[in-house]
Amino acid sequence: MKWQQRLQQIHQQDTKALARCISLVENEAAGYQQFLSQLPVGHAPVIGITGPPGAGKSTLVDALIGEMVANGKKVAVLCVDPSSPFNLGALLGDRIRMSDWYSHPSVFIRSLATRGSLGGLHPQIIAITSLLQAAWFDYIIVETVGVGQSEIEIVGLADTTIVVLVPEAGDEVQTMKAGLMEIADIFVVNKSDRPDADLFVHHLKQMLAPTFYTKQQEVPIIKTTASQKKGIAELYTAIAHYQPLAHNQRHSRLLAEKAYQLIQQKRMKDIDKQVLMEEIERLSLAGEFNLYGFVEGFGC
Amino acid sequence: MKWQQRLQQIHQQDTKALARCISLVENEAAGYQQFLSQLPVGHAPVIGITGPPGAGKSTLVDALIGEMVANGKKVAVLCVDPSSPFNLGALLGDRIRMSDWYSHPSVFIRSLATRGSLGGLHPQIIAITSLLQAAWFDYIIVETVGVGQSEIEIVGLADTTIVVLVPEAGDEVQTMKAGLMEIADIFVVNKSDRPDADLFVHHLKQMLAPTFYTKQQEVPIIKTTASQKKGIAELYTAIAHYQPLAHNQRHSRLLAEKAYQLIQQKRMKDIDKQVLMEEIERLSLAGEFNLYGFVEGFGC
Repeated sequence: MKWQQRLQQIHQQDTKALARCISLVENEAAGYQQFLSQLPVGHAPVIGITGPPGAGKSTLVDALIGEMVANGKKVAVLCVDPSSPFNLGALLGDRIRMSDWYSHPSVFIRSLATRGSLGGLHPQIIAITSLLQAAWFDYIIVETVGVGQSEIEIVGLADTTIVVLVPEAGDEVQTMKAGLMEIADIFVVNKSDRPDADLFVHHLKQMLAPTFYTKQQEVPIIKTTASQKKGIAELYTAIAHYQPLAHNQRHSRLLAEKAYQLIQQKRMKDIDKQVLMEEIERLSLAGEFNLYGFVEGFGC
Repeated sequence: MKWQQRLQQIHQQDTKALARCISLVENEAAGYQQFLSQLPVGHAPVIGITGPPGAGKSTLVDALIGEMVANGKKVAVLCVDPSSPFNLGALLGDRIRMSDWYSHPSVFIRSLATRGSLGGLHPQIIAITSLLQAAWFDYIIVETVGVGQSEIEIVGLADTTIVVLVPEAGDEVQTMKAGLMEIADIFVVNKSDRPDADLFVHHLKQMLAPTFYTKQQEVPIIKTTASQKKGIAELYTAIAHYQPLAHNQRHSRLLAEKAYQLIQQKRMKDIDKQVLMEEIERLSLAGEFNLYGFVEGFGC
């Protein structure tokens, strides 16, 4: 069987086969669900990196890949941020590559279009993430833009959620508090060579004080200047030492939501609305249509 | 069986039993779907009356009831317009009755809260309409406010859709054209004692000219002054003579949509998201969770 062959190729760390499989899953090619059901359960930690546009997430991811590779790790990056240069690379095909890591044997980078089903993220993001986890990587990095619904999803998807911020006025931090504050397992204050960086970190710590008691684990704040690779080693250490605690329930909730959706799709697969309509039209014309009687005919 | 008894009472034209059954269906009481599936298929025409707020729909319905009763007909009225005085009557209970017809033996009036599922209308509107059709009425009148999604539903629900307008400036007619024009089987220009009524009817006719060719049947325009019972006999004649033509497909589409929803509900009845989540959490903690493998266990 073709899928079986692909699975074997992935076991052999075949990058092209992996890329092909992701495309097939992305396009929901015939048999993809069965293929996914046969995947071994991988345990590579998923690192979600999110934050407002302009926070320098992609530069940070680029630097973080470097740090991980330097530590002998294999890294997969999924980019679901439409404004990310990684995604731009995908858009422009092979002509422009925004990261040196595209051709490195320890690194696998993939961009996904955002077309939200469960809110913000790609409908197959859970499947593709498990596929990467089942492959040969030590870390899976998922880069998303921190806007709206995708925030809630990223915490479900990721074992460790990193929120990237830049030093800004106190008021702006206050407004974003609602969305991004609660989801962070690690904060990164990027572009921290800016003069107001320390004041910003101070504000952030004050805001996080009450959160500390609910999280039971202090939320680290790492200052970075990704463009100069500063603070990246510290960030990597924080990631490597992070113990996921409150993660499980959110993760299960996301998976339960997705499982429900998949079961529903599966159970309704035999029903075509057009066929249903034509049948109903025929019965209506014959003057015999009783909606609830009709529905009784459709058992499970 | 209780439901069986209720069905018999409805056969005996028991108004109280009918009202009780509608409440049970409205509240989705145990066994209501089976009860509905056993209802005989009724053929009483459903007359949808819609139009912008302030067009005098309720006054028109009141006058139309009178005309129908005078012709020896039995009439049921479903009011799903939250701004309607009929609905206000329901809101205020028995203390204020906005229509003399509430206590007439040939008339049955019922107001429903609007809490849209399929857009604008009440989620049980199809069920309640069939229940009324299965009862002893010659006509079922459904009064709705003509705003947004409910327009599309009313044409699916009604055998004859009556759009009520009032004489207004030409520009305003133009803007409402998109929504209300295509759905009308009969136009009523109410408050036609206003000085600009004839000009309005003239504009309306001009606008309808291209529609004529798609409808294959000229759309009658009836001038009424409902508050003075003027034009009501003409309206009744138009209703009695209307031959539903293009209706069937829209009706089937609405029913197919609803049938799909009901089948989905039925097939997913055994699945509780909370239980699903707990099961997934347990498997995740054991490090054994494969989403697609898990979903395979849920056949149909």
